[in-house]
Amino acid sequence: MERCESELQEVVAAIREVDESARQQAVEHTSRLVMPPRAMGRLHDTGERLWAISGGSRPVLRERAVIVFAGDHGVVAEGVTDFPQAVSQEMIRCFLRDGAGINAMARTVGADVFVVDMGTAAQSDEEYSATGRFFSRKVGRGTDNLARGPAMSREQAARSVQNGYQIAAESIRGGTRLLGTGDMGIGNTTPSSAVGCVFTGHTVREMVGRGTGIGDERLRRKQEAVSSGLELNGPDPEDGLDVLGKVGGFEIGGIAGCILAAASHGIPVVLDGLISTAGALVADRLAPACRGYMFAGHVSEEPGHRYMLDYLGLDPLLHLGMRLGEGTGAALAMNLLDAAVALGSEVMTFDQAGVSQEE
Amino acid sequence: MERCESELQEVVAAIREVDESARQQAVEHTSRLVMPPRAMGRLHDTGERLWAISGGSRPVLRERAVIVFAGDHGVVAEGVTDFPQAVSQEMIRCFLRDGAGINAMARTVGADVFVVDMGTAAQSDEEYSATGRFFSRKVGRGTDNLARGPAMSREQAARSVQNGYQIAAESIRGGTRLLGTGDMGIGNTTPSSAVGCVFTGHTVREMVGRGTGIGDERLRRKQEAVSSGLELNGPDPEDGLDVLGKVGGFEIGGIAGCILAAASHGIPVVLDGLISTAGALVADRLAPACRGYMFAGHVSEEPGHRYMLDYLGLDPLLHLGMRLGEGTGAALAMNLLDAAVALGSEVMTFDQAGVSQEE
Repeated sequence: MERCESELQEVVAAIREVDESARQQAVEHTSRLVMPPRAMGRLHDTGERLWAISGGSRPVLRERAVIVFAGDHGVVAEGVTDFPQAVSQEMIRCFLRDGAGINAMARTVGADVFVVDMGTAAQSDEEYSATGRFFSRKVGRGTDNLARGPAMSREQAARSVQNGYQIAAESIRGGTRLLGTGDMGIGNTTPSSAVGCVFTGHTVREMVGRGTGIGDERLRRKQEAVSSGLELNGPDPEDGLDVLGKVGGFEIGGIAGCILAAASHGIPVVLDGLISTAGALVADRLAPACRGYMFAGHVSEEPGHRYMLDYLGLDPLLHLGMRLGEGTGAALAMNLLDAAVALGSEVMTFDQAGVSQEE
Repeated sequence: MERCESELQEVVAAIREVDESARQQAVEHTSRLVMPPRAMGRLHDTGERLWAISGGSRPVLRERAVIVFAGDHGVVAEGVTDFPQAVSQEMIRCFLRDGAGINAMARTVGADVFVVDMGTAAQSDEEYSATGRFFSRKVGRGTDNLARGPAMSREQAARSVQNGYQIAAESIRGGTRLLGTGDMGIGNTTPSSAVGCVFTGHTVREMVGRGTGIGDERLRRKQEAVSSGLELNGPDPEDGLDVLGKVGGFEIGGIAGCILAAASHGIPVVLDGLISTAGALVADRLAPACRGYMFAGHVSEEPGHRYMLDYLGLDPLLHLGMRLGEGTGAALAMNLLDAAVALGSEVMTFDQAGVSQEE
């Protein structure tokens, strides 16, 4: 086994289940709040899960960061997208100039944005690192075409997860208490859909959507690319690194690593859309205890996203018909996590408030 | 015509439609943002509507306030709820002690909470006014039982709207730039459902839900109370004050007035759940141009709420399975309005960012 993979196994072995008894105590507290039973709906569940992660102390969600993992994809050769590959790099520059959707969303929730080049095709500008918000962790210069063979080697798969883990772990050591996952990579709904098919068992037709808004002809090509990728490569659904390597992407691996870092350091992580959730599926297969640390920021317009969240048992917080990626859905949902903490810690009980209960 | 009603007519006459050309310019701006077409879904629509309200300048949503209108309901004599009527007053005290759900939610979005006693059965404590956050504007000491006759007189209906208008207008003159509506009143899903039936044409069975969580027997009584109220009183769906007076409530009138104040002063107002939306239906009938200023904070668990929002053409921002009221859904959604403004004002265009467009 490669060194990278054995290091990952150590990380995975150290991940603990969230504290179910702390969650139960939080549920009990909810039942005493001065409101009808569970009247704040999913905000109660969200808060109780945060208490399970904190182990019973009031969850602290500052500082917070969205980490945007970028990569390119050989499968674009199949004509699966309308955008040129150069956009992946152009958007990295835009993130660092604070001009993209994720920058605006992160500002409204007080989150920092970090960008990791996990393997775009072009070279990242060397000056980017001076921003302190960019990290070059290239595992390759774009994946190979998954429709014609494996997207990457098993060793690259392990390295992409490990790189994502290290970046996120460093951020947590620096004080981050809430992570959001983001992605950038032209063509990356294609490998994400493939990953979704493998783990959830849904068909290509159910899983593959229009991504940035492709027409019927490109949709057909995208379905064919995923189908042939699955048939040709035969990814093993029991082996997260096998799936990631054969039909995944470098940024999907980075996101999986970020989730492992959150779980192993005991902090919550908010998922964005389809690509982030593909990373979550990989992390879940590597370390099932990760699920307890994951929150679904939103459900996107991609049809497969809902299936993937269902598989993970995650109920999305936002339903806004978004399909941008970049971590925008993860960022937006952070305010709802704040609200869930406020609900569980600032609202009086019936007794404290002196309010009559049901007759 | 009573003085109050003629004053209301002046208010109504002064309400202007939102600026459709400003909305169109915002839509045009959205199309140039550095992202796939309308990739942020309903957040784009929300922002564009805010620009229509501001008339083209960047919307400013600070200061912000949630106004909680409280009232009691004679229809509780029909056994439609599990909670004793005293809770309406007890919750007012809880709001002023910052201990309720709305207090916690408002804090997380930076909104002030004001409470108006529009007509609870008990006397409000005189010391409450000293808080600066409480206003006594009693139109009566609880409504009459709508299942046995009109809930209030037409003059009381007009006065409740006028009182709500005045409180909200004063807040706006004091600097409020974003309003949220809230409610407190044991039994108030019953009149709200009745109001919903009249305006939307949906049946009692479709509209009436379990409120705070009543069982089958109380649900049956609630349906019967609404049915007999509609049959006995014959409210005229073309006449907002007639509907409010015959099957509504004082706090529903206050909420309608709050919405008229927002519209007539050209600021957005976020609705909470069933009771707030009943008030919105009344405001809409009095002044249809109000719709342009309304945002649906969330869709609640009450089945009728969705029908009422559909009737108003409002797409709810949050879907969290909430059913508390108090303005909690309105408060929570304020962050999404902030995000919509950030999206429309802080994100670069493709040209500014130097990012390639679709091929």
